[in-house]
Amino acid sequence: MDIIEALADAVGARHVLTGADCAPYASDWTGAYHAEPLAVIRPANTAEVSAVMRIAAAAGQAVVPIAGNTGLMGGAIAPGQLLLSVERLNAIREIKPGPRLAVVEAGVILGQLHAAAEAEDLVFPLTFGARGSARIGGALSTNAGGSNVLRYGNTRQLCLGIEVVLPSGEVLDLMSELHKDNSGFDLRDLFIGAEGTLGIITAAVLKLSPRPAAYVTAMIAPRGLGDALDLLNGLQAETGGAVEAFEYMPAHYIDTHLAHVPGARPPFEARHEVNILLEIGVTARSDAEPLPDGTVPAMARLEQTLGEMIESGAVLDAVIARSEAQRREMWARREMAGELCYTRRPAILTDVSVPLDAVERFLVRAGQQIVALDPDAAPFVVSHLGDGNVHYAIWPGRGDPDHLEALIERIETVVQDLGGSFSAEHGIGLGKRGSMARRKNPVALGLMRQIKAAIDPQGIMNPGKVLP
Amino acid sequence: MDIIEALADAVGARHVLTGADCAPYASDWTGAYHAEPLAVIRPANTAEVSAVMRIAAAAGQAVVPIAGNTGLMGGAIAPGQLLLSVERLNAIREIKPGPRLAVVEAGVILGQLHAAAEAEDLVFPLTFGARGSARIGGALSTNAGGSNVLRYGNTRQLCLGIEVVLPSGEVLDLMSELHKDNSGFDLRDLFIGAEGTLGIITAAVLKLSPRPAAYVTAMIAPRGLGDALDLLNGLQAETGGAVEAFEYMPAHYIDTHLAHVPGARPPFEARHEVNILLEIGVTARSDAEPLPDGTVPAMARLEQTLGEMIESGAVLDAVIARSEAQRREMWARREMAGELCYTRRPAILTDVSVPLDAVERFLVRAGQQIVALDPDAAPFVVSHLGDGNVHYAIWPGRGDPDHLEALIERIETVVQDLGGSFSAEHGIGLGKRGSMARRKNPVALGLMRQIKAAIDPQGIMNPGKVLP
Repeated sequence: MDIIEALADAVGARHVLTGADCAPYASDWTGAYHAEPLAVIRPANTAEVSAVMRIAAAAGQAVVPIAGNTGLMGGAIAPGQLLLSVERLNAIREIKPGPRLAVVEAGVILGQLHAAAEAEDLVFPLTFGARGSARIGGALSTNAGGSNVLRYGNTRQLCLGIEVVLPSGEVLDLMSELHKDNSGFDLRDLFIGAEGTLGIITAAVLKLSPRPAAYVTAMIAPRGLGDALDLLNGLQAETGGAVEAFEYMPAHYIDTHLAHVPGARPPFEARHEVNILLEIGVTARSDAEPLPDGTVPAMARLEQTLGEMIESGAVLDAVIARSEAQRREMWARREMAGELCYTRRPAILTDVSVPLDAVERFLVRAGQQIVALDPDAAPFVVSHLGDGNVHYAIWPGRGDPDHLEALIERIETVVQDLGGSFSAEHGIGLGKRGSMARRKNPVALGLMRQIKAAIDPQGIMNPGKVLP
Repeated sequence: MDIIEALADAVGARHVLTGADCAPYASDWTGAYHAEPLAVIRPANTAEVSAVMRIAAAAGQAVVPIAGNTGLMGGAIAPGQLLLSVERLNAIREIKPGPRLAVVEAGVILGQLHAAAEAEDLVFPLTFGARGSARIGGALSTNAGGSNVLRYGNTRQLCLGIEVVLPSGEVLDLMSELHKDNSGFDLRDLFIGAEGTLGIITAAVLKLSPRPAAYVTAMIAPRGLGDALDLLNGLQAETGGAVEAFEYMPAHYIDTHLAHVPGARPPFEARHEVNILLEIGVTARSDAEPLPDGTVPAMARLEQTLGEMIESGAVLDAVIARSEAQRREMWARREMAGELCYTRRPAILTDVSVPLDAVERFLVRAGQQIVALDPDAAPFVVSHLGDGNVHYAIWPGRGDPDHLEALIERIETVVQDLGGSFSAEHGIGLGKRGSMARRKNPVALGLMRQIKAAIDPQGIMNPGKVLP
């Protein structure tokens, strides 16, 4: 019996796609990666995922897991390999309001979990642009970040337990609801962020948080990036750590937005170099009790703080959203980043992180390096400033591949000199294997290879990804 | 040249202790574990740790790392082996107030880091009874917990980066200050909590938090443990997640305290079954601004909430600390747990965790099981209730080893049935290898062995610990 027949026996013939039926799975959404898989397999549950892996292991056949296919690094591309989709493992098994957790399968769409949590007056705080199609298994496998990491952490910090199907087909049940468990090595965190190269995450226990009673959202123009870090620390102290988003858009970002989005409005009357989107999730009851004018005390307090900072000169201007529509407008400007980046082609998109107090130095040095190599190049920057993550894009003066690579290497050198990372939240996949080879600590890389060989001795789990 | 001479060349003869000089290192502080090491080696820095490991690796000599020697599970016992003490790696290299982090060496004593952080109006929130002698390397290697895990997480969650000397002597430099880094497998969390069986942690980058402007501390007697979880969730909602400690002491704990501690006073006029020590770390400025009477608004708000809960019957009594002396008295009662446990011998001390909503079921079932096996046995319980961690001790009716083991197995069965862990925060060391063999998921155990063999193929890093 050939492998396709065996797989059809295991999951049902309808759920083994071949040939033209694979087309929707053959490309990533950016269009940067494309490859025909041998077949797409859609198991219904963990037992079927295990059966698929046993068949693949017996045949020495490579398997690539795919969830929502919203990644940016080509991690779910499967040239001539089996693509195992977790889309049918899509049950939210349970929301537990008392201990504040959700038990979900890997195919659950992030936005569905958001809705289910909110129905219990809780939140699953992980959020990013692709929330309408990204699935939990992919978020865990890439340790996805997003805009709320500042308060709630990456996906890793939101997860108590996972279930994993290993390359052998064995099921590793770590579906713990425990907040403390020191019984041996931390296997959970080894699989989270491994991009499917060590096994397939099939289910998870996730932490939920109280739903903020209100959001206070503002656009703020600090004098400089140093003032922005002071502002963030001051607001964290004032709110007891309730700042959820602290997103930086430089003047050229605002200019680009105004130039390309019909009806776009500038955040301030004047043009400012540093534009921050701030959001506070008001959870302390005293800050959230509605006032007669419909606002909450947290808003008045922010107004007062910003007024004082404008007096002192540390902040040049600030606007607080007075309605949900105004809040949406502020977020819509920020969430256009991807589209705005690709208003010019080619565009090089990087995803780097540096220590919190090194963002300004990074931006200055990166700008100098880029222009030294290519006087016509222009940066396009947006940053999760609160966690040191900069999406530093470059519009180069010319598009030959060697030149693009040279620009990327310049950025990487600046990042490395500052103790930063060449991949903050997008992961490695196929796209950054070159950077891994060039920039990753060789001792760490050696350990990764040893661990990969120990867990996947045949090398059939998402081969060719992550490790160069 | 024999190995002792080679080690003396590497670290200086003064720092290679043999024979009687090893005595202070040969026992753990509980007196439960004792073994003579071959020698105690005290390297001064990472390079010397690396040199020691190279010498040991060449000789196939086992090495046991030791930090503050405050562990409870015998993890730093080295029979006939080299004991590598990190006590001389004791520099706090830097406290960075802007990005709120500390760069420390493994031998830094926890209490010293507390003081250094507080000098910058910050806190390193990890704390437990042994803070005056426990060292950072041990806290990381055991992923230490303590009383503030509810708000700040275990040691794991407080760590951004580590440096590790591998069994080969190679140095793995993961001293990252980054909040986001998705460049490959999460090696950091593999070494944290591995109890020195994969390598020796020599330095770390740790997260600091704003120092609460005030603490509001109270003793509360909820009607039952279900009401206690509701109370916790309600207080978290009210304070925006500022509850730092939520410690449970049953009536028999209070009785034992009164019976054994001269001058001890009961927390309430009446005897209550459920006694909770609550502490809120007031970080939001609006909750902390001093009122004319010297208190803070958070205290008045807690008073009001507790008054309402007394009205409704969910809380039977409550006392808020009105002075630092009263707060100290509340904490002193809780921090006597270790001594109180050993007022009767033998005492079996367990350290289990269960899901937050299963603590009451656990206590009922465990009590039934214990008494069924030993009608004269009595439990002695104290619990970090906010994170499901129960220190369930037993004073058995008789002390033969088989009987003690049988009692432990009964507790473990109850824990396992509830999806709990037989080791919440104390780790495995030597003491819980039997539990690992009996209770740990065999697939997980198999993976741990594979990882151990991959990273430490000679088996010289703290052999015989953690893995059964």
